[in-house]
Amino acid sequence: MRDIFTAELAALGEDLTAMSRLVESAIASAGTALLTADLPLAETVIADDHTIDAIERDLDERCVLLIAQQQPVARDLRVVVSALRMSASLERMGDLARHIAEVARLRYPATAVPEALRGTFTEMHQGAVAVSQRVTEVLASYDLEQAAEIERADDVLDRLHAQTFGATLGGTVGGAHSGAGPLTAQETVDVTLCARYFERFGDHGVAVARRVVYLVTGDFADERGA
Amino acid sequence: MRDIFTAELAALGEDLTAMSRLVESAIASAGTALLTADLPLAETVIADDHTIDAIERDLDERCVLLIAQQQPVARDLRVVVSALRMSASLERMGDLARHIAEVARLRYPATAVPEALRGTFTEMHQGAVAVSQRVTEVLASYDLEQAAEIERADDVLDRLHAQTFGATLGGTVGGAHSGAGPLTAQETVDVTLCARYFERFGDHGVAVARRVVYLVTGDFADERGA
Repeated sequence: MRDIFTAELAALGEDLTAMSRLVESAIASAGTALLTADLPLAETVIADDHTIDAIERDLDERCVLLIAQQQPVARDLRVVVSALRMSASLERMGDLARHIAEVARLRYPATAVPEALRGTFTEMHQGAVAVSQRVTEVLASYDLEQAAEIERADDVLDRLHAQTFGATLGGTVGGAHSGAGPLTAQETVDVTLCARYFERFGDHGVAVARRVVYLVTGDFADERGA
Repeated sequence: MRDIFTAELAALGEDLTAMSRLVESAIASAGTALLTADLPLAETVIADDHTIDAIERDLDERCVLLIAQQQPVARDLRVVVSALRMSASLERMGDLARHIAEVARLRYPATAVPEALRGTFTEMHQGAVAVSQRVTEVLASYDLEQAAEIERADDVLDRLHAQTFGATLGGTVGGAHSGAGPLTAQETVDVTLCARYFERFGDHGVAVARRVVYLVTGDFADERGA
């Protein structure tokens, strides 16, 4: 029984890691689609999100089956319950990538990100990709140093998110889309939502990181602190 | 053993319902604070959110203990796992109420909602309160008709959310806060975020409703469909 359980647990971990790789790819593509007005890429992210959703449902089912059939206790049980929670965070990160791709699709052939905020959004995209890559690594390695890196990357995303507000509100709003000029209402809406989506990647990454830290050390930092 | 399990399961259900009542109250107060620039009320919502977070953590612990000690299978196990998921949705609704209260606090003594959108936001507030009340009822009664009502209330919130975009983008943006005039950049940002928070209440309510429908009928509508 124990061998079966260990094997099932390993398979669960591998599938979570594979799911995280898909999320990583969705975030990378969604950000690129947003920044370069790449319609086919945006369509791909939107179409592929159901794959991530399906993996979450499958992982859910298997976690429940694993509990029912193997009746794990103590740490084993916590690992399985944590997998349920972490797959929910990953699924949500997939949704956020889809939302970003939807904004890109909606504005095509224009780009949703105004010129003045291109640098900030490029950095946010890099930060979100960094978070998602580290989430994959943490899930594969349970490396606490990687978990700490996710917290730092989240801080960067929070700072960039705050910057977008400064930039959005910096000038009087009302001009048409132009170089570094003021933002239109549409641009303000797009920037506000997309910046929030990028910032949420960090929160979900931190939630996964803290679950892993908890499993390794037994010490649970407040998951909602971020 | 069976009696203990039944009693624990009932206690879990009661605590979920109690948690949902707190969320209901947070949503009601946050919306009122937003619409009337009521600072003390906003502060209360912000300060009380940790209570909802603490209940979620407690419910989590108890679900895991219940699985470990009673080793439920089949439907019993699904009820416990669903409780884990539903408490996560409720906790998130509490966070969203706190975010709305934070916007109210940030704009005080002004109101974050511009005059032109007062009607729409009042309706969104009512819709969100209706969703949260029905979530409490569904958790207490497992009444499928109430679950269907949540889906309808969510549709209303989606429609109102779309309306705010229309209103935000209707005029050229750039004027100062005024009666029914164009929105400032700050107003556009606040309206965009708060409308999204209200819309998300509906999504989380639907997620809870679908879990309940699944437990009652075994039929799981796509939880992410909304």
